[in-house]
Amino acid sequence: MGKGRLEAFSDGVIAIIITIMVLEMKVPHGENLAALMPLAPVFLSYILSFVYVGIYWNNHHHMLHAATHVTGGVLWANLHLLFWLSLFPFVTGWVGENHFGALPLAFYGGVLLMAAIAYYILQRAIMATQQENPVLAKAVGRDVKGKISPALYAIAIVSTAFEPKIAGAIYIGVALMWLVPDRRIERQMGA
Amino acid sequence: MGKGRLEAFSDGVIAIIITIMVLEMKVPHGENLAALMPLAPVFLSYILSFVYVGIYWNNHHHMLHAATHVTGGVLWANLHLLFWLSLFPFVTGWVGENHFGALPLAFYGGVLLMAAIAYYILQRAIMATQQENPVLAKAVGRDVKGKISPALYAIAIVSTAFEPKIAGAIYIGVALMWLVPDRRIERQMGA
Amino acid sequence: MGKGRLEAFSDGVIAIIITIMVLEMKVPHGENLAALMPLAPVFLSYILSFVYVGIYWNNHHHMLHAATHVTGGVLWANLHLLFWLSLFPFVTGWVGENHFGALPLAFYGGVLLMAAIAYYILQRAIMATQQENPVLAKAVGRDVKGKISPALYAIAIVSTAFEPKIAGAIYIGVALMWLVPDRRIERQMGA
Amino acid sequence: MGKGRLEAFSDGVIAIIITIMVLEMKVPHGENLAALMPLAPVFLSYILSFVYVGIYWNNHHHMLHAATHVTGGVLWANLHLLFWLSLFPFVTGWVGENHFGALPLAFYGGVLLMAAIAYYILQRAIMATQQENPVLAKAVGRDVKGKISPALYAIAIVSTAFEPKIAGAIYIGVALMWLVPDRRIERQMGA
Repeated sequence: MGKGRLEAFSDGVIAIIITIMVLEMKVPHGENLAALMPLAPVFLSYILSFVYVGIYWNNHHHMLHAATHVTGGVLWANLHLLFWLSLFPFVTGWVGENHFGALPLAFYGGVLLMAAIAYYILQRAIMATQQENPVLAKAVGRDVKGKISPALYAIAIVSTAFEPKIAGAIYIGVALMWLVPDRRIERQMGA
Repeated sequence: MGKGRLEAFSDGVIAIIITIMVLEMKVPHGENLAALMPLAPVFLSYILSFVYVGIYWNNHHHMLHAATHVTGGVLWANLHLLFWLSLFPFVTGWVGENHFGALPLAFYGGVLLMAAIAYYILQRAIMATQQENPVLAKAVGRDVKGKISPALYAIAIVSTAFEPKIAGAIYIGVALMWLVPDRRIERQMGA
Repeated sequence: MGKGRLEAFSDGVIAIIITIMVLEMKVPHGENLAALMPLAPVFLSYILSFVYVGIYWNNHHHMLHAATHVTGGVLWANLHLLFWLSLFPFVTGWVGENHFGALPLAFYGGVLLMAAIAYYILQRAIMATQQENPVLAKAVGRDVKGKISPALYAIAIVSTAFEPKIAGAIYIGVALMWLVPDRRIERQMGA
Repeated sequence: MGKGRLEAFSDGVIAIIITIMVLEMKVPHGENLAALMPLAPVFLSYILSFVYVGIYWNNHHHMLHAATHVTGGVLWANLHLLFWLSLFPFVTGWVGENHFGALPLAFYGGVLLMAAIAYYILQRAIMATQQENPVLAKAVGRDVKGKISPALYAIAIVSTAFEPKIAGAIYIGVALMWLVPDRRIERQMGA
């Protein structure tokens, strides 16, 4: 079975997720800076989430490029990943509207953590279809970033109990770490 | 006429349906657990509906894979299915916001029942185009799950008059039954 | 230049239009029939608009199937059509929320009329690219339905000043007339 | 790496942006002209933004047509462009709801300016992949419109401090200037 429709459907869902997040920035009724100011934290959390969803799309793009065929298990592992990504607009809005409060930041980290786990499961499901010619396994290699990230999200979630700013800093740091695109698969597939 | 655009359009509509359902989870204004709690039933109904829409996308994907060409009748049978799927966000929100009340659960079952009937009509419309080489008919076979499901939805709708919990249990049970991907078509089409 | 991306973009926009119309059916807060009843006119107008957008997608699908290449003029004629289609959710919600009042029905007809004109302009723009081999011109033929519809919409708009029910009946009648898929192009292109 | 998925994802995001803008036109509760009138400025700003997003889709379409392959840098430059485009619904709604006030018009210009810069960066990123066979560089040529536009947006932003109408006139003027489709790339790529 081809992977074209899986990619198209994922593209559609991710495109909608990344776009409807902006709907959490409600148009203010006034026209001065005072009316706009309350939106500043919503805008900051929107930028962070846009980058995260962009990273997921980017890596998903690379991973499926290295996929050779699609099984029922891969389809459901992919839907599982999309489920957690679909919660981004909600936690983004919650974090933004509550000025980076502790509990919203913990839930934000929870969604990041579950999405990272879902991504890992999808990666394993695709690898399981490539036992003879492990294209993706070679490309992924040791996958240092993929293993560090969930640990950092877990630390961030715990840290919200003490100092929410630590969690915020970790989320930004992990995003910056991933902004470097995943050249491993490109190298393996390249030329 | 090719089926590519039919698949692309269906993917788009299903991707939007599965994603806008999350908009029914309104961002709470408070930042504590008390503010989040009222969303628990909305979240549970979101999970169930996400799984159902995922099942439809999955089976639609398999069915159209076995379609050989597309007629005007197939196009409209497909739009008819998409119409009933498009009501998922509404009934999901209604069930969730009213804590699994009887009438919302009955309407939820009504949408499930109509979508199942629409899926069956689409299946027949595609089969009607394959009279010489019945790829889909062979693949679908006896279609036990496709025949049991509408009966179970009907029982669930009636049960809401007595005990809404029965309906909820049936909807979850049918979803679990379908989560096993439809290997029949995969087997028939397989290499 | 290929027409694939034009079709993909149009599919995306039409898929979103047909799906976000359902957001006008706001989830009621009560769980009884009394809470649901006010939504009946919104639901009826949703069905009508779903059918209209489905007709446009269907005919657009056929028309672009007969297009051979895409110019800048075709791109903009297509965007012009999408603009009028994008107003469907607004007029549908307005008609539904005001129980088929005269002015909302007149505006609904106005959007139908402008979309029909935009469709005609797009058809002419595609024909203008096929002067040597007029595939689309042959397929469209006399285009009786395409010429009657705008006249009927105009009559409906005027009729709202006297009796809004006439306009509603005309919109339903034109939709039924178009539900018969456009076999002319299919025949012309057919194997 | 192919550019198909990049185009598909961009099409999806742009299709959603252009469509959800219409959601800022809230359905009025009354059914007379008085209820509709407050929406006039929202409708006007919707038309202008629809044209701008259409221009971006159009030019993006042409530019990627002239792209030969896609690198990580191109992927992120594209996401950066989509980020600024995703702010169109917000600034459009803000401008419309505040009857073309000075600050909303300045922010509108800010988003136009940032999108223009992001488009330029994407253009450079694609050109950087074509050093041996500069298809895009030849096609773009001197790019007069691409260089004038940001300057005009900057003038418009400053002008809002004195007379917001100047800014509005500039935004309309630049849109009209771009409505002439970019025939340079078409000519260069043409048969």
